[in-house]
Amino acid sequence: MVGYSGSKQDHAVRLRRVEGQVRGLQRMVEDDKYCIDILTQVSAATSALRSFALSLLEEHLAHCVAEATLKGGPEADVKVREASDAIARLVRS
Amino acid sequence: MVGYSGSKQDHAVRLRRVEGQVRGLQRMVEDDKYCIDILTQVSAATSALRSFALSLLEEHLAHCVAEATLKGGPEADVKVREASDAIARLVRS
Amino acid sequence: MVGYSGSKQDHAVRLRRVEGQVRGLQRMVEDDKYCIDILTQVSAATSALRSFALSLLEEHLAHCVAEATLKGGPEADVKVREASDAIARLVRS
Amino acid sequence: MVGYSGSKQDHAVRLRRVEGQVRGLQRMVEDDKYCIDILTQVSAATSALRSFALSLLEEHLAHCVAEATLKGGPEADVKVREASDAIARLVRS
Repeated sequence: MVGYSGSKQDHAVRLRRVEGQVRGLQRMVEDDKYCIDILTQVSAATSALRSFALSLLEEHLAHCVAEATLKGGPEADVKVREASDAIARLVRS
Repeated sequence: MVGYSGSKQDHAVRLRRVEGQVRGLQRMVEDDKYCIDILTQVSAATSALRSFALSLLEEHLAHCVAEATLKGGPEADVKVREASDAIARLVRS
Repeated sequence: MVGYSGSKQDHAVRLRRVEGQVRGLQRMVEDDKYCIDILTQVSAATSALRSFALSLLEEHLAHCVAEATLKGGPEADVKVREASDAIARLVRS
Repeated sequence: MVGYSGSKQDHAVRLRRVEGQVRGLQRMVEDDKYCIDILTQVSAATSALRSFALSLLEEHLAHCVAEATLKGGPEADVKVREASDAIARLVRS
């Protein structure tokens, strides 16, 4: 995440939007909105979190993992394994 | 969602926790935390949203869909179809 | 699943198609096809399995769960809980 | 996928197992097994396909993407983008 200030700004905007969606969900529950409408909003928030994660992951592969690959050594393998584990958690969450 | 005040309280608590997780994500991005740690936190927030959705869905099946079934008529089919569509959105989000 | 012979036929067709996709995957691995193309085919097979599951689940809600609701008693609650658990496994698989 | 014969063997074994699961699903539908049991088996097959995909993806990052990174040039960016798109399809399938 270090130093990619354009995407940092973009990430901040996306997360504020997700926060807004989650606050919207709280109001929907408070106002006894219809379950199905609440579930639709949950799906939207989940999709937005996933998009954020996928965008962060692409940056991570393009920067941190690539730098480790160029340096070589065991660190490169560690980074690939670490990224793979994060992808697995993402797929299963 | 109407009238199940115990679960309404429970839903509100879950969503406040998700909101806290999303605010935590914003701080992590702001503080240039390591991508993999941010991704782990995204997976936690996504899982928490999914758990909320699954709990809401179970209530919906037990109450709204069941009531429509007992009334009978086309409304019952509409409710099942609507719930199935919400499940499909949830699975794919 | 008992007695809905139209959908039973439809389910059989869907599953034969998934089997074909999985055999296609085996040939792709055997022939050293490009990883990304194999992953695209995995996503297609996974989506097809999910669509089958969602269609089966909708039938289950419309028939088995609805019948249990009409009978009433504890069996109705058991059916809703069982369906909710299956949905949770589906969402997380 | 080229030349990693140990993992190629491992992939073949995993996919044969998934094929067995899908044939098992066909028998379950044929024999009118209980929906919930069929759905449990679908979740198992979906999980097995996902595990295969995650293992293939990790290899792809460790070999094809790493090689492109070491060569440098636009090909490296293409490989990262391609992998990211495959991850997105996997997450959403």
